[in-house]
Amino acid sequence: MCEYKVIFQPFNKAITVADGDNLLRTAMEAGVHINASCGGAGVCGKCRVLIESGTVEGGITEKLSADDLAKGYRLACQSRIRSDLVVRIPVESEVDAGVLNKFATPRKTARIHQVDFEELKDQGLFIPPVEKRYLELPPPNDQDRLPDVTRLINFLKAKYNEHRLVARLPVIRKIPDTLRNSAFKVTATLARPVHEGRKTHIINIEPGDTTNRNFAIAMDIGTTTVYGQLIDLISGEVVAQHGEFNGQISYGEDVLSRIVFAERPGGLDKLHQVVVATINTIIRRIVKEAKVELDEISSITLAGNTTMTQLLLKINPRYIRFAPYVPASTLYPPINAVDLGLELGDHVTALVYPAISSYVGGDIVAGVMGAGLYRTEEVTLYLDIGTNAEIVVGNKDWFACAACSAGPAFEGGGIKFGMRAAKGAIEDFSVDPVSLEPMLVTIGNVRPKGICGSGLITIVATFFEMGIIDSRGKFHVNLKTDRVREADGVCEYVLVWADETQIDRDITISENDIDNLIRAKGAIFSGFQTLLEEVGLRFEDVDKIVLAGGFGSYIDLEKAMVIGLLPETDPEKITFIGNGSLMGCRMSSLTNRIRRDVVEVTKKMTNFELSETPSFMNRYVASLFLPHTEINHFPKLKARMSARRRFLR
Amino acid sequence: MCEYKVIFQPFNKAITVADGDNLLRTAMEAGVHINASCGGAGVCGKCRVLIESGTVEGGITEKLSADDLAKGYRLACQSRIRSDLVVRIPVESEVDAGVLNKFATPRKTARIHQVDFEELKDQGLFIPPVEKRYLELPPPNDQDRLPDVTRLINFLKAKYNEHRLVARLPVIRKIPDTLRNSAFKVTATLARPVHEGRKTHIINIEPGDTTNRNFAIAMDIGTTTVYGQLIDLISGEVVAQHGEFNGQISYGEDVLSRIVFAERPGGLDKLHQVVVATINTIIRRIVKEAKVELDEISSITLAGNTTMTQLLLKINPRYIRFAPYVPASTLYPPINAVDLGLELGDHVTALVYPAISSYVGGDIVAGVMGAGLYRTEEVTLYLDIGTNAEIVVGNKDWFACAACSAGPAFEGGGIKFGMRAAKGAIEDFSVDPVSLEPMLVTIGNVRPKGICGSGLITIVATFFEMGIIDSRGKFHVNLKTDRVREADGVCEYVLVWADETQIDRDITISENDIDNLIRAKGAIFSGFQTLLEEVGLRFEDVDKIVLAGGFGSYIDLEKAMVIGLLPETDPEKITFIGNGSLMGCRMSSLTNRIRRDVVEVTKKMTNFELSETPSFMNRYVASLFLPHTEINHFPKLKARMSARRRFLR
Repeated sequence: MCEYKVIFQPFNKAITVADGDNLLRTAMEAGVHINASCGGAGVCGKCRVLIESGTVEGGITEKLSADDLAKGYRLACQSRIRSDLVVRIPVESEVDAGVLNKFATPRKTARIHQVDFEELKDQGLFIPPVEKRYLELPPPNDQDRLPDVTRLINFLKAKYNEHRLVARLPVIRKIPDTLRNSAFKVTATLARPVHEGRKTHIINIEPGDTTNRNFAIAMDIGTTTVYGQLIDLISGEVVAQHGEFNGQISYGEDVLSRIVFAERPGGLDKLHQVVVATINTIIRRIVKEAKVELDEISSITLAGNTTMTQLLLKINPRYIRFAPYVPASTLYPPINAVDLGLELGDHVTALVYPAISSYVGGDIVAGVMGAGLYRTEEVTLYLDIGTNAEIVVGNKDWFACAACSAGPAFEGGGIKFGMRAAKGAIEDFSVDPVSLEPMLVTIGNVRPKGICGSGLITIVATFFEMGIIDSRGKFHVNLKTDRVREADGVCEYVLVWADETQIDRDITISENDIDNLIRAKGAIFSGFQTLLEEVGLRFEDVDKIVLAGGFGSYIDLEKAMVIGLLPETDPEKITFIGNGSLMGCRMSSLTNRIRRDVVEVTKKMTNFELSETPSFMNRYVASLFLPHTEINHFPKLKARMSARRRFLR
Repeated sequence: MCEYKVIFQPFNKAITVADGDNLLRTAMEAGVHINASCGGAGVCGKCRVLIESGTVEGGITEKLSADDLAKGYRLACQSRIRSDLVVRIPVESEVDAGVLNKFATPRKTARIHQVDFEELKDQGLFIPPVEKRYLELPPPNDQDRLPDVTRLINFLKAKYNEHRLVARLPVIRKIPDTLRNSAFKVTATLARPVHEGRKTHIINIEPGDTTNRNFAIAMDIGTTTVYGQLIDLISGEVVAQHGEFNGQISYGEDVLSRIVFAERPGGLDKLHQVVVATINTIIRRIVKEAKVELDEISSITLAGNTTMTQLLLKINPRYIRFAPYVPASTLYPPINAVDLGLELGDHVTALVYPAISSYVGGDIVAGVMGAGLYRTEEVTLYLDIGTNAEIVVGNKDWFACAACSAGPAFEGGGIKFGMRAAKGAIEDFSVDPVSLEPMLVTIGNVRPKGICGSGLITIVATFFEMGIIDSRGKFHVNLKTDRVREADGVCEYVLVWADETQIDRDITISENDIDNLIRAKGAIFSGFQTLLEEVGLRFEDVDKIVLAGGFGSYIDLEKAMVIGLLPETDPEKITFIGNGSLMGCRMSSLTNRIRRDVVEVTKKMTNFELSETPSFMNRYVASLFLPHTEINHFPKLKARMSARRRFLR
């Protein structure tokens, strides 16, 4: 990979980038502010920069005069870096901006952790729950009249030292013809027991040697989106993946409205059917993409929150909604996939991740298993951030968990211009310390449509660090910018003027929006604070933090610490696993031992109901500030803010 | 019960009978011949007897003159015994008949052995595979949020010391609502594991206390007839039973034609569906009869021959028909009853008896288990007599088995006037030694329609002992009766003249019929003789004989020894169990241990293919005589025949 060095002047900030990187994003990453209000679409023409040395591709638009172009000016958002560069930013007040930028932290996202197949193998944990065995059997004759199934079992025993074998009815039905249509050369698929000494099931038989074709499916049943992966059990690789909106969305956006719908006559059946249809759509899509036959799939593992799991299994979720909020079950037995309506071979068993409580479900358990928390001495804090935030803390010996309602702010809900992390969402932001003009980048470099969760965090953190809002999230008075204004008695900042948006309205962020974010982050922060306290730990005792959730990958960790969503800690301690539920399902497909271990984990896991923990409400109220009532818990931020104040004085 | 003594003169034979017994049948049982050719229908008027003392009810018809009536004559077949009696038989030749009758043996049927519930209990073997447990659970509250299934499991553990409990999906679906609709007072149905230490499944939950209502179904899938029993698992009693023709009969009368039909496109599915429909008809009938709800049935056990079993389970039976005659499997896993199409609750598991080979099937294994052969030191010979005869010999340590084709003679097939043991079938027979006039009794005391298997044995044995046929089954020449005649070059005896039948034709028995019977009994006799030899035993080493089969209950054991179907032995050694397959299914419903033991039995069982045992054909040929080439194996018969010859000389 070709790398270049880019130096931003007058700040003398250097950053190393890859060939073709976008210049505006590079500046953002370096912590260098360039006014830019159209999200990187090349519309506002504000991100004019002077290329002092080196070459960029593009960056030339009608927004630049011939004179500017001749001098070497380019639009940063339209420029791709093709060599080492020296770039000069035209600033309103060189001195102020340059110095103030010193107090900004560079964007820092978490290390991404995923299933490492080679590591699994090295640790002897590559034990897929389904394995194939090839056999060349002697045909029966007058001296050897073993029944077909007995013949298969005896030779599996003799050749592969397989014991305690039993065949299920669907495969018994296939065995006689398959043996004879393949000259008794066949491949048997074996499903391993959870506990050694229990029975191994012969679940399929195929003619010839198919041992190099064996696949599993991992499926995360989200309230909004269902994600599936097709996993090659020979290589351990994900060979295809796809997400679809959960078909249940038409019957209610959130968990509670689904439960209400399930109470209608036929409602439960309907919700069951539509989520199964969604799963089947995903299966069809990924097998087609990877050119895999449905019959080559030997297992499926599914995880979802407690309500999604009960709806998938057609178990009335009614009592999840009413105090004392009791789920039907934690553990679910293995189920024939066809009995659930899944369009898979009749040999496939569906394994469903167990739940802990009504609000800490199988998706969280899957994440805990996928991230390997149960195998390490290190005390790990696991956060799955969404409308509901689930928190797990523990190590191989113990676990505690809790759930809290963060509200939908992180997913764009309750924020006037909030949106999901999709094309047109403002995902990164900085502000000129003097002019208070914004620099913003959207997903897809298109005209802005709204603000996604990670953008929201960055905007609020930046406002706070730059002294635009106070610790209660209120705009300071007398800010010298027309971007801050009052509407219906509430102060707001105009991120993008109407003519630069896709939506022909000013995109703003108001004190109400900021308040919603503060309440969301406050719930999460006080949630894990309370949980840690309940188990007698301080935050310093936590060795690792694992972030999960569709949203987490884009979080700027430093900014999350500024708003007090995360405690101030070494970012190196933090890893991001993305969709933890899906990761756990994939892990289960690769290592059967999880099925045994997960039972132990559910037994070790203590669930805390935060709403009944008296200290939670106090901690919550104390968290409703930026970063927190107790600024001393955020020493680095405190130091940066003091330095800034000293400088300004 | 009121008992009377009946003395038959001039033979001075006494017999004890119950109040209301039929006088003609009583004479037959006492070994006293009375001419009677209409089967006991009161039509021929031949069974005129003189009541010398005592009272009979009935017996007065227009066949008797006023004079006869005044003297005290009655028709024996129409007379019911109401007191001690002295009855005089008018005989053609008092002296001859009286003495000859001495050589006739009284009718002797086998002791009937059935499942003895009290004995089972005493032996600690009453361990039904499904049991109910009543629980009053505390409802959840803010301090106790156990998931519903966990609550149930924990309290089953605490109150009943139940361990390793798991709930299946269908019951998980029922638990939340059932708990709340019954104030948390519920009855759980538990399915026991085969092996201790394995999991116990919670398969059902019902509101309130239903522990006194728990039922099982036993089902024998015969090629011709399917029999079902409804068993009360509290009392151990059969509360209803019913048989229906197997719906598959329309698609072929015997096993081979069913296999051929199954090879047609859709044939296997069709045969599966129709036998399931037959089973469902029986289930509906017996639950209705016993006023049991379908949902109160907790288990079903089924047994059938190997082909019937494979058709029930929709497993292609094709390879049963072709050398080397290999069945698909011996053992079958437990199957959800609903998956087979059985109209039972979704909590019901269907247990299917394992087969040994293509021609020794689950019906035989069930009989072996039902009769308890596997629990005793005694060496037992188990004979299931039908078109195919299955033979098992062994004790608790070892088993050997074989099957042979006896032909359909015992079921009335291949016999010109053969019929099943139904109303109108001649089931008992004797002959006047001088006039050669018959005495015959039909099932139901109606005009004769034909001859059933047990009647055939009695007729042929009587002919042989009375010197009417020789040891090759040929009629002696110069018999002084018009009942013996030649038709199409074959000699035959007219049992019933056309005007006394239901069918308006003479009912006869010909040398061809006798030959078919001899070949059938020869196959069975040489079959178990060969099997015993293969395992190094002589017939004398056999401690017990168990007869099974719809036909066996009516066999006159002494007559069966006369024709050489059974070896000459103490009739006390012989027990009859009727439908062994059904008995085994019933036993499985009462004692779960059978599921473990049956696996051991199938492992211990050695199957012999008689057609490949060289000595079998020699023994078979030697058996094609009455009773056998080697009369010395039948010393009692030999002695009786010598005495008779001495007397006649």
